Amino acid sequence: MILPMKQWLLSWLTKPATTRVYLDHAAATPLCAAARAAMAPLLAESYGNPSAIHAEGQAARAVVENARTQVARTLGVRPAGVAFVSGGTEANALAIVGHLTARVRAGAAWSDMEVISTPLEHPSVLETLQELTTRGVTVRMVAVSETGMVTPAALRAVLSEKTALVTMAYVNSEIGTIQPVSSLVRVVRAFARERNLPRITVHLDAAQAPLWVPCQLSRLGVDMLSLDGGKCGGPKGSGAVVTHGVVPLAPVLWGGGQEQGLRPGTENVLTIAGFAAALSWAQLGMEERVSRIRTLRDTGIQELLEALPGAVLNGPVGEERVANNINISIPGLDTEYAVVALDVAGVAASTKSACAGVGGGESVVVKAITGDADRARSTLRFTLGPDTKATDLTTTARILADHRALMSTLTQ
Amino acid sequence: MILPMKQWLLSWLTKPATTRVYLDHAAATPLCAAARAAMAPLLAESYGNPSAIHAEGQAARAVVENARTQVARTLGVRPAGVAFVSGGTEANALAIVGHLTARVRAGAAWSDMEVISTPLEHPSVLETLQELTTRGVTVRMVAVSETGMVTPAALRAVLSEKTALVTMAYVNSEIGTIQPVSSLVRVVRAFARERNLPRITVHLDAAQAPLWVPCQLSRLGVDMLSLDGGKCGGPKGSGAVVTHGVVPLAPVLWGGGQEQGLRPGTENVLTIAGFAAALSWAQLGMEERVSRIRTLRDTGIQELLEALPGAVLNGPVGEERVANNINISIPGLDTEYAVVALDVAGVAASTKSACAGVGGGESVVVKAITGDADRARSTLRFTLGPDTKATDLTTTARILADHRALMSTLTQ
Repeated sequence: MILPMKQWLLSWLTKPATTRVYLDHAAATPLCAAARAAMAPLLAESYGNPSAIHAEGQAARAVVENARTQVARTLGVRPAGVAFVSGGTEANALAIVGHLTARVRAGAAWSDMEVISTPLEHPSVLETLQELTTRGVTVRMVAVSETGMVTPAALRAVLSEKTALVTMAYVNSEIGTIQPVSSLVRVVRAFARERNLPRITVHLDAAQAPLWVPCQLSRLGVDMLSLDGGKCGGPKGSGAVVTHGVVPLAPVLWGGGQEQGLRPGTENVLTIAGFAAALSWAQLGMEERVSRIRTLRDTGIQELLEALPGAVLNGPVGEERVANNINISIPGLDTEYAVVALDVAGVAASTKSACAGVGGGESVVVKAITGDADRARSTLRFTLGPDTKATDLTTTARILADHRALMSTLTQ
Repeated sequence: MILPMKQWLLSWLTKPATTRVYLDHAAATPLCAAARAAMAPLLAESYGNPSAIHAEGQAARAVVENARTQVARTLGVRPAGVAFVSGGTEANALAIVGHLTARVRAGAAWSDMEVISTPLEHPSVLETLQELTTRGVTVRMVAVSETGMVTPAALRAVLSEKTALVTMAYVNSEIGTIQPVSSLVRVVRAFARERNLPRITVHLDAAQAPLWVPCQLSRLGVDMLSLDGGKCGGPKGSGAVVTHGVVPLAPVLWGGGQEQGLRPGTENVLTIAGFAAALSWAQLGMEERVSRIRTLRDTGIQELLEALPGAVLNGPVGEERVANNINISIPGLDTEYAVVALDVAGVAASTKSACAGVGGGESVVVKAITGDADRARSTLRFTLGPDTKATDLTTTARILADHRALMSTLTQ
């Protein structure tokens, strides 16, 4: 027992406190330089209400509208298609409940509408879908593969003439699955065309997307995206619903007519500016970033699986997996505690989505794709960032192996 | 015609561009030094997700919880009574719809509940009440005096055994009326006690309050306050619902369990820190600020009414009026255009609430208290700040008199 503990303590004690390895970018990203540059002057100068007609108000209005144009250009939509909200959770509520509310206002009944989603969604989508069911909407879950993929055939099987909305994560926040969006959209459009149905709206929760996959709506073919600034180098408390073409939406909060009548309340000028700058930075530098980090990811997966016999990878491999995601299960290990041990040793990681809550409990996502409770209880997620280095993952694998050895000694 | 135009052009051309007179503090306040100091380091350093258990996450958690404690101490409630949201509009939605939703979950029917409010509320309350009526709730408007006051007798007249919630602005955002909250609360409590009714919840929209009136909930006797950081020296996009005692609330957005299950989504660490610092600053220095600015207000009202024959003050005088509010009507003058002329001459003012929208139209508030459409169409609001100087109002009165003279020459 002494040797691994000694080794572990030694590595902990000798590690300079300033060198942290941050591998939880899916939970929150550092503010990128572009966002900081956009925000810093606003802390000092801008304080008008963008709805005021005087110079101070119009200066704030200009910040908001420049940000809107920047987001619109980045994503290939018109500025009127960008509604700024307070983050990804609110974005999903506005996109999903707001869209169905608009359909109700146009004459549809809640109970006549079906929404299609997957069992792998973020709590902000799953809980929103739960809210819809209390209003009478039928929610159908599409079957997913063991890597979390939705296939065109599986989606086709749940479409119906009542389908009003298809909503899913573009990139899964836990296991990194990138959905084959264009193929899925083609299935939806063909289904509606064959039956001469009104438009079926396709919405992507793209919170995990901007740093790693293309987000231009015209390229994807989807009607709506939800975005979260705090996951792509922007500030927490920022985000947007972005629509392509004319997507009926009704607000989910009530008050003034801000954001094209979709989001009442004084605009959060500071975080809107930071969000737009971050989103643009995230998408512009994407290809180089992806090729570099994907290589680190694959080496990291290999190192982890070698260092931890019995560990298994959750989610897909190769290009179907987002470049920055590693998710493994180490059956039998208390991975909640392993996250604490990693933290003490200087590595920030997680077991699952931060919004799924602190504390024990299995990963709903890994349970859904594997049906294996041991595997779902023992997940570890490492999400890389633009500045992650190869040694970060080598270090992580070593710390984790040492920790497991220590744990196994202690419980013998 | 030449003389007033020349005078006006001269004052405009000779005014240094840097000296602006900002008299629209009810729409948005500059960030106070305390808020800036709380926020600036976070732009550089803090990026963890407060729900993550590693050091970066816990550092962010500490920022949020310190802010919560600061708000709780400032307002005399327990930290668990503070739920941070994205601003005053969302705060009103959570307080009003969230409370009634909680009552429905506890077995009440929407159609069995009555809500009492006033016709003078901010759009974020009026539109939220409209939403409630679509769910079957009865909304009763209490009669207000010609200065916008709710009297205990008027409130008593609309209370019923079905009353679930009484909601009104503590300080009216347009005409500055401070409601006699303690007297009103006593009426509500006595009514419920006499009839042995369950608790009637009293909620105040306190967005305009923290810089100018005491906000301790125990002192006020109310159950809930809505607050908006951007109106009290904090950043836009921040605010809170603050409860005293046990007030049932259900979230109005859906997702993770953040903010005691009341507000899902990653906490906006940056603006939460700024909001708490601003609120504390606003309340701590209040008495000195009020006595100083109230004097300026009264001199300003006198100067404006003298410089503009026919102009009338809207709202109460003396201590019933918030220290920083001046609202006059100048019947016959296009005050929307006057705001533009003031702006060009260096003074930022407004006609009414910014959330009531840009453009023409009458003030709903002034129409409700006076019944006079000409008066409601010709409002001008000057809302002072902690740094307003006596000369600011003298200047404003002069510019406005010149502008009116010019307008009257042009239309002769």
